[in-house]
Amino acid sequence: MADSFTFSVTATDGAARTGEIRMPRGVIRTPAFMPVGTAATVKAMYPEQVKALGADVVLGNTYHLMLRPGAERVAALGGLHSFMNWPYPILTDSGGFQVMSLAQLRKIDETGVTFQSHLDGSTHQLSPERSIEIQGLLGSDIQMQLDECVKLPASPADTERAMRLSLRWAERSKRAFGSQPERALFGIVQGGEDPALRIESTRALVGMEFDGYAIGGLAVGEPQATMLAMIETVMPYLPADKPHYLMGVGTPDDLIAAVARGVDMFDCVMPTRAGRHGVAYTRSGKLNLRNARHADDAAPLDPASSCPAANSYSRAYLHHLVKSGEILGMMLLTWANLAYYQDLMASLRKAITESKLAEVSGEIRAGWAPSEAAPDDQAP
Amino acid sequence: MADSFTFSVTATDGAARTGEIRMPRGVIRTPAFMPVGTAATVKAMYPEQVKALGADVVLGNTYHLMLRPGAERVAALGGLHSFMNWPYPILTDSGGFQVMSLAQLRKIDETGVTFQSHLDGSTHQLSPERSIEIQGLLGSDIQMQLDECVKLPASPADTERAMRLSLRWAERSKRAFGSQPERALFGIVQGGEDPALRIESTRALVGMEFDGYAIGGLAVGEPQATMLAMIETVMPYLPADKPHYLMGVGTPDDLIAAVARGVDMFDCVMPTRAGRHGVAYTRSGKLNLRNARHADDAAPLDPASSCPAANSYSRAYLHHLVKSGEILGMMLLTWANLAYYQDLMASLRKAITESKLAEVSGEIRAGWAPSEAAPDDQAP
Repeated sequence: MADSFTFSVTATDGAARTGEIRMPRGVIRTPAFMPVGTAATVKAMYPEQVKALGADVVLGNTYHLMLRPGAERVAALGGLHSFMNWPYPILTDSGGFQVMSLAQLRKIDETGVTFQSHLDGSTHQLSPERSIEIQGLLGSDIQMQLDECVKLPASPADTERAMRLSLRWAERSKRAFGSQPERALFGIVQGGEDPALRIESTRALVGMEFDGYAIGGLAVGEPQATMLAMIETVMPYLPADKPHYLMGVGTPDDLIAAVARGVDMFDCVMPTRAGRHGVAYTRSGKLNLRNARHADDAAPLDPASSCPAANSYSRAYLHHLVKSGEILGMMLLTWANLAYYQDLMASLRKAITESKLAEVSGEIRAGWAPSEAAPDDQAP
Repeated sequence: MADSFTFSVTATDGAARTGEIRMPRGVIRTPAFMPVGTAATVKAMYPEQVKALGADVVLGNTYHLMLRPGAERVAALGGLHSFMNWPYPILTDSGGFQVMSLAQLRKIDETGVTFQSHLDGSTHQLSPERSIEIQGLLGSDIQMQLDECVKLPASPADTERAMRLSLRWAERSKRAFGSQPERALFGIVQGGEDPALRIESTRALVGMEFDGYAIGGLAVGEPQATMLAMIETVMPYLPADKPHYLMGVGTPDDLIAAVARGVDMFDCVMPTRAGRHGVAYTRSGKLNLRNARHADDAAPLDPASSCPAANSYSRAYLHHLVKSGEILGMMLLTWANLAYYQDLMASLRKAITESKLAEVSGEIRAGWAPSEAAPDDQAP
């Protein structure tokens, strides 16, 4: 715990770092994977389970929460932590990304964005100031500036225009956030796949002195190599004493690769969404439990896992639950997947501390080989 | 624990009794409510939670399990207990009721019933002998004879014909079951709403010496008074030293009324199904969490409950989860409802031991009054 937001690096291994973010609501061990709790719930999980797996922070989505149940309502009920029974740190996004991907009839201008709710078609406005206001009403511990995420493919001109608009919105977000030492505001690097734009964005944001820096606009369908190249491009320009957050990433392989390049924080719907669609992440690779070859398999997902969902239920039973559309199937696979992701992060933190990141990363990747031989198990 | 199936009554209060069924897999405290685990899962619950609530036994559905994943497959995987991670007693029905309510193109004759699966249209046969075989393959601790449940409304002739067929199937079920001291086979009283048929059915079954007796064909839409009248009709003819099981019942009020008339065991999908549809059973009555009046209510379902789902989450949060179709909403409400049902049974057992059943029943019913004034909260 701490009175104010602080970040300290405790060990490095090459470009990789491990450390701690300290905040009044708790300590976030980095590199950290943040389970996504879109609508004030990490889907199919009790909050106690999420914490017990080793998650120190969850992500809430401003877009979803402003529409339902509404930020003012959550504030009146005591804030998001109390609302969702999660007393630990919460990071909220700005709402910008989901406005672009989910809302209808978007109109974007210098002021902000006007859009229609995907739920009921009602009209809403989101500006940098309103986004910060909403995140404050929710009681978010780590808040994100509003940015414009351009739809891909985007022209160079559009990418540049959106990056510059995002910088102006960063300044307004910072002003609106003001001084809140117990909370943090992160700026978001944009600039698409253009190194020069990425560097310009990073430099400008660093000049504004945010509490942390996110790399946005990646994990949107580009090859992993492009994503890693962009991380390598901006990393030299990010302050070493501030957290580096790669938004919306990713696969276990993405996490390993990004940690090696100095990323401290991640969020992704992958483990939870996969869990609701019959897919398990395990030490031996990704499994599609819908596959008929699991129907008679008495083996658990991973006998060496410490998660009951992975060590105590047979693949045959999970197959049955998934085929039957049973809620317990989603509960167990989500649980097992989040356990895998948190265990992966714990392994990486330990490896960095012991200066064995390359070795440990290699071992983890080698463990995936067997199931990658079965292409029908790789979906989705 | 016990080497063989035994039942003992430890206290009575009027016609009500409390006692214990002892079996190798555990003790069932009666009166007992058995959560329904249709497809090898009590929907939206981890098995450890079900046990922790005080459930000593769960019900599995032969019809569902024979179709998916298949009885032979479950047997090869070590039986239903191991399959679903429930090492405690399991009662299975015979499959007859679901064949009548779910399957298509049923053809019934003296031999048994031929039907098409509601899942894929495949043809299956169920005879008294095959039902016992399936229940044996599943490893069921308490098995039920195959009976014919006539669709209501039924003519007196049809009711009588089905009752007599069920008696002949009872004999064949008993022969097929043979001698299995560590397990139990229950006969099922039929006869619709006709007291004479009910008595004839009861007498004939008792002559066959089953390990327990179920009252079937009720809770199918008839008024509660009819159900209670049928219980009162058959109870004098049931052996006092064997368990009495009222199948498919019911509401909390049904349970209280039936316990007072000597019923020892119940099963019903009501608490679990209601939990998946936004409805909560609480000490102060039934609540429909979809109702907008809960949207800003910071109060939990029941601060005095020992169940976290009932005491730690606001009604506003539950309303939000239900409106958003979130899985956690179903998980929490199912949990709270099963907790309420198990707590209710524990209260009744204690009241019988203390010879205060009428008084305690009155107090429980009086607690429901407030919410019954809100008709929109009574659905479904």
